Amino acid sequence: MNRYWTDVVRTLQPYVPGEQPKIDNLIKLNTNENPYPPSPQVLAAITAEANGLLRRYPDPNAERLKRTIAAHFGLEIGNVFVGNGSDEVLAHAFLALLKHPAPLLFPDITYSFYPVYCRLYGIEFETVPLRDDFSIAVDDYARPAGGIILPNPNAPTGRAMALGEVRRLLDAHRDIAVVIDEAYVDFGTDSAVGLVREYPNLLVTHTLSKSRSLAGLRVGYALGDAGLIEGLERVKNSFNSYPLDRLAIAGAVAAFEDQAYFEQTRQAVIASRDALDDALTALGFEVLPSGANFVFARHPQRDAAALQLALRERKIIVRHFTAPRIDQFLRISIGTEAECAALVTALQEILG
Amino acid sequence: MNRYWTDVVRTLQPYVPGEQPKIDNLIKLNTNENPYPPSPQVLAAITAEANGLLRRYPDPNAERLKRTIAAHFGLEIGNVFVGNGSDEVLAHAFLALLKHPAPLLFPDITYSFYPVYCRLYGIEFETVPLRDDFSIAVDDYARPAGGIILPNPNAPTGRAMALGEVRRLLDAHRDIAVVIDEAYVDFGTDSAVGLVREYPNLLVTHTLSKSRSLAGLRVGYALGDAGLIEGLERVKNSFNSYPLDRLAIAGAVAAFEDQAYFEQTRQAVIASRDALDDALTALGFEVLPSGANFVFARHPQRDAAALQLALRERKIIVRHFTAPRIDQFLRISIGTEAECAALVTALQEILG
Repeated sequence: MNRYWTDVVRTLQPYVPGEQPKIDNLIKLNTNENPYPPSPQVLAAITAEANGLLRRYPDPNAERLKRTIAAHFGLEIGNVFVGNGSDEVLAHAFLALLKHPAPLLFPDITYSFYPVYCRLYGIEFETVPLRDDFSIAVDDYARPAGGIILPNPNAPTGRAMALGEVRRLLDAHRDIAVVIDEAYVDFGTDSAVGLVREYPNLLVTHTLSKSRSLAGLRVGYALGDAGLIEGLERVKNSFNSYPLDRLAIAGAVAAFEDQAYFEQTRQAVIASRDALDDALTALGFEVLPSGANFVFARHPQRDAAALQLALRERKIIVRHFTAPRIDQFLRISIGTEAECAALVTALQEILG
Repeated sequence: MNRYWTDVVRTLQPYVPGEQPKIDNLIKLNTNENPYPPSPQVLAAITAEANGLLRRYPDPNAERLKRTIAAHFGLEIGNVFVGNGSDEVLAHAFLALLKHPAPLLFPDITYSFYPVYCRLYGIEFETVPLRDDFSIAVDDYARPAGGIILPNPNAPTGRAMALGEVRRLLDAHRDIAVVIDEAYVDFGTDSAVGLVREYPNLLVTHTLSKSRSLAGLRVGYALGDAGLIEGLERVKNSFNSYPLDRLAIAGAVAAFEDQAYFEQTRQAVIASRDALDDALTALGFEVLPSGANFVFARHPQRDAAALQLALRERKIIVRHFTAPRIDQFLRISIGTEAECAALVTALQEILG
């Protein structure tokens, strides 16, 4: 506490991101980064942009990137909002679309940044329990609500909702904004982007951090009806005119231009995930079905915190959450084939 | 208006940044960018960082950059906050330190983003008139206040406050946070950074956009007592864990490492500014004394809006604000010697 702090800052409970260890030679499977580097075209575009024009402000509207994204999804530029990672995009969405007298709804087990945003902006919220199998029960959202936000696939469970369920949710809540956070959607989950033209209350958020291998560049975006996007722009232009630097804009455009690389790497991650799922199951783990680039697994006879520590001693980092209902699970990001094999070998040793 | 917007977003009046024209061959003297490119060491550092590790998140705490900045100013790492441009740093400061029951005070003529932040966060504010010569009268701030923010030098006037006046302001307001926004300080204004250890209520904000020629990279920072910085960190970690991408961190570190280049380019800008001041005065302009990389000038016989348009016809862009008291001024960023010479020639033609 500090005497100059505002009341807001006193009550915050900041988000704690996954560890970014400074030790070398670790197998890092804790923050859902892509095991493959970004496209060579992305690196070339960034290098080309590292020139004297960095003295100039970027385009505050990042039009070139918005046009690229709009064209990719068959939408208009007015349907696209871009930001400094999807976390910034989500933050603006909370303030622009989700702060209403009725509570915001989201699952009891979900991305742990959501309640943090709510405290930042003074948004009332209620959590809706997942089913026992950790799936989302759409009918349980039939209660007074000022907005709804859901990741699909959900984090940290990895479980995906079928598109028909997303549609059922949208149909039941046409009077409030519904945000579908699709950070991990490219790893085998059906996207709701195709519903944007149909539902003026639907905002879909994406990131380049996962499936485009660009966590280090900080680019995210949202797709939705032009009215929703305008609300986000109003908040953004009241916060920071230039959230995306010149290098990020150039790199992100190039990432969308190399579709072949995107397809190749995301399919490789999906294949590794399915193989890891099989290997973990063979070791006695219960593995939730995953539509993401990670798996969420528990071992009926072994304590998750102890397993995490034992892996760490073998220089393998995975994520463990101490929250209720999930404290016996490990969230394991999909690494390269070699990294996944090293994980399985280590677990075989630990389990005896 | 959109039916899904929150009450907050309905009442916003977003900031309008200076135009970033997409036409080539313009002499762009409207957004206070540096006429010189960034240090070659910065470009080399960015190019080196454009590698496969972009798949990994950056250090959320940007420790390497914080250590570099702390060492540069003889402070500790806990005295440094970094963000995605000083606009983001300021936004967080408004919410963390300047939202109190008593109104925030700032000059009637100042950076026009301040009232925008206030509306974003619901902060009451009062403006304090500058003197007729556009200088800041410290004694006029002796009124009930929840916080004070002032740019030094002020924008868009360019007028600097002497350090003794800043100290007098701090002495008179030890019970509230005082933010000195030093975006332009390196062009000949005395910095308050040396007072940080003495005043636990002082926050100083800087940017790499101006004197380090990196508007396109989006890096700003704040220096202050560790308690104030912790307040900013709490807000930042409730908004976006990773505001600085890997390339921005690497480039910003390199900018501080090439001190010789920084000195050379800022002295060149100062020399050009003083020469432009003389030339404008010879053309009949009244030029306010500037401690920045721009001048603020009016011509007693010519309408400022008309002058701006006439310059634009000659492909020279300067900034004109329609606000009361300053609507007969032009704000002219300092260009290269050739750009300043072209401006003077154009004005000679226009004035006949």
